[in-house]
Amino acid sequence: MARRGLMLVLSSPSGAGKTTISRALLERDDNLSLSVSATTRKPRPGEVEGRDYFFVSDGEFERMVQADEFLEHADVFDHRYATPRGPVEKALSEGRDVLFDVDWQGAQQLRHAARDDLVGVFILPPSHDELERRLHTRAQDSEEVVRGRMAKAASEMSHWSDYDYIVVNREIEESVAAVQAILAAERLRRERQLDLPGFVTHLCAGN
Amino acid sequence: MARRGLMLVLSSPSGAGKTTISRALLERDDNLSLSVSATTRKPRPGEVEGRDYFFVSDGEFERMVQADEFLEHADVFDHRYATPRGPVEKALSEGRDVLFDVDWQGAQQLRHAARDDLVGVFILPPSHDELERRLHTRAQDSEEVVRGRMAKAASEMSHWSDYDYIVVNREIEESVAAVQAILAAERLRRERQLDLPGFVTHLCAGN
Repeated sequence: MARRGLMLVLSSPSGAGKTTISRALLERDDNLSLSVSATTRKPRPGEVEGRDYFFVSDGEFERMVQADEFLEHADVFDHRYATPRGPVEKALSEGRDVLFDVDWQGAQQLRHAARDDLVGVFILPPSHDELERRLHTRAQDSEEVVRGRMAKAASEMSHWSDYDYIVVNREIEESVAAVQAILAAERLRRERQLDLPGFVTHLCAGN
Repeated sequence: MARRGLMLVLSSPSGAGKTTISRALLERDDNLSLSVSATTRKPRPGEVEGRDYFFVSDGEFERMVQADEFLEHADVFDHRYATPRGPVEKALSEGRDVLFDVDWQGAQQLRHAARDDLVGVFILPPSHDELERRLHTRAQDSEEVVRGRMAKAASEMSHWSDYDYIVVNREIEESVAAVQAILAAERLRRERQLDLPGFVTHLCAGN
């Protein structure tokens, strides 16, 4: 059945397992692809235009901001990053779903731009101690470094209530299955169905 | 994680496969049970009070209507049927989900009474011809009998847009999996989570 695609936004504090979940979803779901960002930074060796990023000049980036050609954009240190509207809109209209791996600020901008196309999932670590353990990435990490990471995670987590779904990542396979169920269900939402059996839309028109 | 239960409402025209799907869901999902209706009709042999129905007198039924103790009620010929509010409210508060097999009028009343607890799924047959084939239950059915059934199905189907999800029942296993995904996803909705990890609710309170 033909339907409009959806924008799946995954956010989480670092250390909660979002990247692993995203990769598994992309591998297992042929109808889902990762959104490609535009950036003003230079390509690194091996990066491919249109696959890793759309590489644009500062001038072109600013022109696109002004022309409202981005769904969201952010400045990170000296570089600018954004989600171009065109490729996302094309995917959705063709019934393909797009995955966004963004922080709460990106998610908020996307929500504002996309409205009903967006499905927001927030991934949480199972406990404070488990998060701390995961953020201790190296044995020589100082307490101060870990405290800094915890504070950043806490700040990100305080935005959990902006999301439609909450997945507590206790076990990775269980969490992947949970996000897959969310995708499967959201694809069946009435407002995404464009091509109900003809005899039903006929009834609908006569209603 | 503790959560509030949900009310899963399945509706469809007869012949679309709703009963088969409901049975499969109830068999496979220990956390889901069928809502037990109250009725003024007499028990039939083998029917058990509280399992098949709550059998009540006409006077008791009317008292319950007046006291707003039903989530929905309807008169069918000489008998009255209703969904008692108490057992449903108890199940939801204990995190158990309740399945309702009702027509669009029952669904509309439940929606009005339940608001955010309700998840409505409408099951559609794949085509006009397939529905007609399924409604020809006996070889000797006259054209007129089948036409009558089709008209009734059409009238039911015209209410598809009152539901949250649409499942076109092409193949029964696929449709059961679809409703299971809807259940799994709806259980993860933010507003149903009552018991997020303590460190998150702490953040939330400080927000």
